[in-house]
Amino acid sequence: MGVADDDTFRVGLLGYGTVGAAFADLLPRHADRIQRITGLRPELSGVLTRSRGSFDEILESSDLIVELIGGLEPARDYLLRAMHAGRHIVTANKQLLSHHGEELWETARVQGVQLRFEGAVAGVIPVIRVLQESLAGANVDRVHGIVNGTTNFILTEMARTGATFAQALADAQRLGYAEADPSDDVSGRDAAAKMAIIARLAFDTPVHIDQVSYEGVELIQPDDLEYARDLGLGLKLIGTAERVGDSGLSVRVYPAFLYPGHPLTAVNGPFNAVTVQSEAITEITMSGPGAGGPQTATAVLGDVISAMIPPASTPPATETLDIVSDVMSSFYLHLEVADEPGVLAQVAHVLAQQHVSVKSVVQKGIDDQARLVMVVHPVLESQFALAMDQIGALGVMRAPPRAIRVIEEEFG
Amino acid sequence: MGVADDDTFRVGLLGYGTVGAAFADLLPRHADRIQRITGLRPELSGVLTRSRGSFDEILESSDLIVELIGGLEPARDYLLRAMHAGRHIVTANKQLLSHHGEELWETARVQGVQLRFEGAVAGVIPVIRVLQESLAGANVDRVHGIVNGTTNFILTEMARTGATFAQALADAQRLGYAEADPSDDVSGRDAAAKMAIIARLAFDTPVHIDQVSYEGVELIQPDDLEYARDLGLGLKLIGTAERVGDSGLSVRVYPAFLYPGHPLTAVNGPFNAVTVQSEAITEITMSGPGAGGPQTATAVLGDVISAMIPPASTPPATETLDIVSDVMSSFYLHLEVADEPGVLAQVAHVLAQQHVSVKSVVQKGIDDQARLVMVVHPVLESQFALAMDQIGALGVMRAPPRAIRVIEEEFG
Repeated sequence: MGVADDDTFRVGLLGYGTVGAAFADLLPRHADRIQRITGLRPELSGVLTRSRGSFDEILESSDLIVELIGGLEPARDYLLRAMHAGRHIVTANKQLLSHHGEELWETARVQGVQLRFEGAVAGVIPVIRVLQESLAGANVDRVHGIVNGTTNFILTEMARTGATFAQALADAQRLGYAEADPSDDVSGRDAAAKMAIIARLAFDTPVHIDQVSYEGVELIQPDDLEYARDLGLGLKLIGTAERVGDSGLSVRVYPAFLYPGHPLTAVNGPFNAVTVQSEAITEITMSGPGAGGPQTATAVLGDVISAMIPPASTPPATETLDIVSDVMSSFYLHLEVADEPGVLAQVAHVLAQQHVSVKSVVQKGIDDQARLVMVVHPVLESQFALAMDQIGALGVMRAPPRAIRVIEEEFG
Repeated sequence: MGVADDDTFRVGLLGYGTVGAAFADLLPRHADRIQRITGLRPELSGVLTRSRGSFDEILESSDLIVELIGGLEPARDYLLRAMHAGRHIVTANKQLLSHHGEELWETARVQGVQLRFEGAVAGVIPVIRVLQESLAGANVDRVHGIVNGTTNFILTEMARTGATFAQALADAQRLGYAEADPSDDVSGRDAAAKMAIIARLAFDTPVHIDQVSYEGVELIQPDDLEYARDLGLGLKLIGTAERVGDSGLSVRVYPAFLYPGHPLTAVNGPFNAVTVQSEAITEITMSGPGAGGPQTATAVLGDVISAMIPPASTPPATETLDIVSDVMSSFYLHLEVADEPGVLAQVAHVLAQQHVSVKSVVQKGIDDQARLVMVVHPVLESQFALAMDQIGALGVMRAPPRAIRVIEEEFG
């Protein structure tokens, strides 16, 4: 205990719920890669669950503590003790930071340890790091966020199906997007904790969760979503942190209509997104899956790796993937053709010979304006190029064939 | 020369074009704030332009060198010499990194200095930092990016107006979105350099710009955009870096149709955006303004600040903004009213008394279903609440009034 190989980095894990279990699974699977990047091999040195493990023993045998217990105590006590013992901390505990952030951040500064918390807000979307580092040079005016996936899923379902709030909540629970007790999510309180943390970082001002006003989505009616749809608006649970006048800051969570084209209007389902506005940058938006075991665990692992490597070092290129130039692509194909019988048959014959499979075809125009517009299924690009050469040589072509790739839906 | 006050952090600037001038303007304006955050006061210690300044003198009197000259030489020589002299580097030079990245990154590691380059790719969108740090724990499968603002502006204009490529390019030049010599942008070569850097970071594999295949947008016809519009597709110049099989990597730039709902489909005008996909995170998307003097300078300044502070330290809360609870908001107002004459007049009277100004009103339904749906201009929330109380007390109301905030367009 207390002694490790020189090339081992010992990670003590507090908490073994959804995120904790996902992290415990992720760490060994990435250990080789992390060792190549950092020179150190991360290793779980102990796990504290409700029924097993000793905090003192885990602390003694760890270089870094990952806290995924949640709640205020004993999480606060554990983190303070770990930092006083010189350990780095990675946590995803939004409640703790929105109540006791200043005490914890000051302890980290005084003790000279890292306290990272990307997983506390918006899952894998790197809003913490971006506010703390990338935008340190921007004078932020306003942050708008969709930071609760449960309510965004519910509002999306209500908009899509005309369901009531109660029906959509039941769907969310059935699909695992809402807890059995959803009150923290639907009341806006979960989002309020996250906005307190975001506001603290964006405006360098201490913000306690009790200073964040919040409303939830319980009172939203199908009527409201119908109104939104008629006007092309989005209806979202929005968290806002914004400068008011010269010396004011407002932090609040509330349902709101968003005009068409607002970067958050198209964020649907259990996704989260955050828009940061400032004069210097106009605005940037980040979106991605909200909380979820593997997503939050990935954010936590990113924090662990950051604690292991020197700042802004680009590690050696440890992979030696081959650069491939011939890949599978789907294509749109635009052909100006003679308006005569058999043209489609000739083109189709060439495509079939090269094993290019047609997904859709439209014949447009007549006489000089005759066009074939086709979309083909994914095919090796070199093979498609052969087909294009042969089609270009057909007597019925009135201009060189034109092709543009098509990116298909990759998820869902 | 060579000696600075303990609390001064000396920044030497190489290059004084659009971004350089914006950076030289930004730094002193943020000096107070940066000193509060980092304890150090940044100060321009020298500027090298085409006609003035000496690199050796600037190097001698700087703690960090910001390189905004662009091109391969003498930028490469300057950066190598600066790092050998122990100086940190911030650069926005995509050409240099896509040609000589490995040499420069290795020099930084060996010399133990920071080499930061967020400004080299996608302006203020923090794609470099996110790939290097946040997603170090994700096994990236694919990156899609719109990383050239000029071509995205041109394609957006062609789609919006039906213009030809030549017309849209002329517009872009007139509005300052395209250079007098646009060939690097429209040929896809600028995007190829950025994708080489992105691919290096996402896949830990050395990628030289010559290994990136690229096509531009010169051959896109109005017909193609018409096809896209008819099907709700986007047509974008896309950069892709993706794993192929177990040991392959493809990096390429090409025009492509995107299905409706793809996170990059709605990215219009001179904006940039990057989507990162991996099994663990599904996908995250970041979007914002592409290159531009102030935007890129903000990214450069973020890198400078990062080089000045310890990693992942949350600085003390240096601001003491007041938490404001009463702000101006626009509202949607949903009233179930008795279907009788004079209802609108009564409601309008109450609103006018509280100085709530009506933007639009719709009267719907009859009898039990009669509704007034209004949107009001921004008003202090406390004042609107008073109006709501009074409206709720009107005899013509059949249910409590319901209000939801409306977020208006904040830019443009």
